[in-house]
Amino acid sequence: MTPTPVTFVSPTAPAAYQWEATNDEVAARYGVPVERIIRFDLNTSPAPPELASRVLAGGRFETPLSEYPPSDYRRLVEAAAGVYRVAPENLLVGAGADEILDLAAKTFLPSTGAAVVPVPTYAMYHVLTSQRGARSIAVPRLGPAADWALDAEAVRAAAREAEVVWLCSPNNPTGRSEPPGAIEALLADLATDAAAAGREAPAVVLDEAYAEIAGHTLIPLVERYPNLVVVRTASKAYALAGLRVGFAIARAETIGRMAPYRPPGSVATTSVTVVTEALLDGSAMRANVARIELERGALREALTEAGWTVGGSETNFVVADFGTPERAATVAEGLLRRGLVPRTFAAGHLFARCLRLTVRDAAGNDRLVAAARDLATEGVR
Amino acid sequence: MTPTPVTFVSPTAPAAYQWEATNDEVAARYGVPVERIIRFDLNTSPAPPELASRVLAGGRFETPLSEYPPSDYRRLVEAAAGVYRVAPENLLVGAGADEILDLAAKTFLPSTGAAVVPVPTYAMYHVLTSQRGARSIAVPRLGPAADWALDAEAVRAAAREAEVVWLCSPNNPTGRSEPPGAIEALLADLATDAAAAGREAPAVVLDEAYAEIAGHTLIPLVERYPNLVVVRTASKAYALAGLRVGFAIARAETIGRMAPYRPPGSVATTSVTVVTEALLDGSAMRANVARIELERGALREALTEAGWTVGGSETNFVVADFGTPERAATVAEGLLRRGLVPRTFAAGHLFARCLRLTVRDAAGNDRLVAAARDLATEGVR
Repeated sequence: MTPTPVTFVSPTAPAAYQWEATNDEVAARYGVPVERIIRFDLNTSPAPPELASRVLAGGRFETPLSEYPPSDYRRLVEAAAGVYRVAPENLLVGAGADEILDLAAKTFLPSTGAAVVPVPTYAMYHVLTSQRGARSIAVPRLGPAADWALDAEAVRAAAREAEVVWLCSPNNPTGRSEPPGAIEALLADLATDAAAAGREAPAVVLDEAYAEIAGHTLIPLVERYPNLVVVRTASKAYALAGLRVGFAIARAETIGRMAPYRPPGSVATTSVTVVTEALLDGSAMRANVARIELERGALREALTEAGWTVGGSETNFVVADFGTPERAATVAEGLLRRGLVPRTFAAGHLFARCLRLTVRDAAGNDRLVAAARDLATEGVR
Repeated sequence: MTPTPVTFVSPTAPAAYQWEATNDEVAARYGVPVERIIRFDLNTSPAPPELASRVLAGGRFETPLSEYPPSDYRRLVEAAAGVYRVAPENLLVGAGADEILDLAAKTFLPSTGAAVVPVPTYAMYHVLTSQRGARSIAVPRLGPAADWALDAEAVRAAAREAEVVWLCSPNNPTGRSEPPGAIEALLADLATDAAAAGREAPAVVLDEAYAEIAGHTLIPLVERYPNLVVVRTASKAYALAGLRVGFAIARAETIGRMAPYRPPGSVATTSVTVVTEALLDGSAMRANVARIELERGALREALTEAGWTVGGSETNFVVADFGTPERAATVAEGLLRRGLVPRTFAAGHLFARCLRLTVRDAAGNDRLVAAARDLATEGVR
């Protein structure tokens, strides 16, 4: 008798994050020298703060690199507590905001549960929900005339059957914050609905990755709403995306619920030390935010003069709307041929007719503007 | 009408990793100057390789630290493929072996499932199983007379209702490898049983964190067994625990099943660059392994002379058996008062009567031996 072959295939493939092509891949595909490539697709900053190389070169880390990172990340937590104006027990450290999102999903989202995802937004909220085996309830945002604000009533209704509500303000990829008071009103409504239904209010995970650039935060609300988890990162305004450090900020008992899911140590000691110093000395972050504001205005103006329709932004990126997915794709191709990598959106995505473009330094932005003018003379815009 | 208060408490607290006290906490509790503290509890190495500080000081990383780490970790994957003698498509990178274990749980272990945990072993296998909502089936190992080998028949029987079998060889905390051929025989038996039952064979996650020290690996078996995932790390023989880099090694289609669960980027660029160089230049790792072998023999001999019962080891730690949990606790207390931190095991743990002790450098080991002699003169052993 021949034994049945042992097969080993996944019955249901989960949603997964889609990586953009690497510099090498773009260079190969478009025949552009790799050093000419500029990433407009990742919402990062042109250069890390000078203190990063200084601290790394100094070689004095919290603990020797042969040891595990300090299990309580104490100095980092204390520095972050000072910056975010909370107590150390209101903080949890993760390997980038992405690990914080994963810990939130593990803590609050059972595999039989559901999560509200106000679309369009950062792809990982749906990916993590799907990977938990839970159900995503996609709630479309109000349109461009309303600055892509949340449809608060629809989110509230969907949240009645959800354990998690994923929010992002300022939102990626729309670039805008929720109107003042909107998220607090939603939190109050969710608490009312939960109390009326005799259930626990869904966790509201509020991703504030771009908060320093927008200049406002809802961290002060965590004391009032135990179901609120604010997510912050060293990747955007602090210009340290390569070091992978993010934070959850919530009431102490909420942090206490998430803490068991934190791995024994996921943040490298080098990252702990550099980000601690960057938080303690906020000058490079503030200079980066000032640069972004200046460059963003100039970039938006120049692209508009070149004939593009560019929306407002409280982040380090802008969104250009080309009216149809076909025109967006043609412009993207024209940019890629010049070594400029935009963020594109797949067919069917609410932003398929748009390109998202990171605000880079003056020289980088100038190349983008020159390309927009070039393409316009070819009739592509 | 008073609204019902919104409560926000976890109905079932999951198992969680228990961190050892930090140096600061030990110093405060035992009144020892913090610089006198030596960790014998974390199975790390006394110092990182010299190339770590050189590479960090050089400041030339894969990508600028303001950018996200390279999404495919290409140079790191190619370096690791060379060291582990597999193809790049057989590899997945994680933030330490712990993230690889998490990815394995996410990929293979449904919340309704079960995992076999041969105890005693590394605590995270049960923690991750519990955090998935799945069931741990603890299978006791054979006793000290059998070098704590797997009870292969009991593991095989338990695996009939499991989706994952967590193995560790050499095993932590027993310090011994499985006998030659034992794991391969188990893999063959699991395949036979799965075929007979018309089901998929459970994933066998084989943690080889200490393989370089033991001098052997089962990586060559991955081509034959698509359900085998070997886990390796830069934390032990490479002496870079602070950088958080680990690997999964498996057949390409198995890596392809795990890959969707990999976060967009969890390993810092600094870690990617340093570990790539450490893998390419294995000399410091080999010197560290040679040091461990030398020091381990000397430490074991000296502790035995001091009256301790110390088992054999293929790792960078040894285990001393004090016969009863009370005597182990008394010795632990005596060591802590001298600033020497042993790994203790909670009441009820199969190793509650033992202390696990990392092999450190000659000066550190000498302090441990002196303490053992001291305690013996006080009648504590």
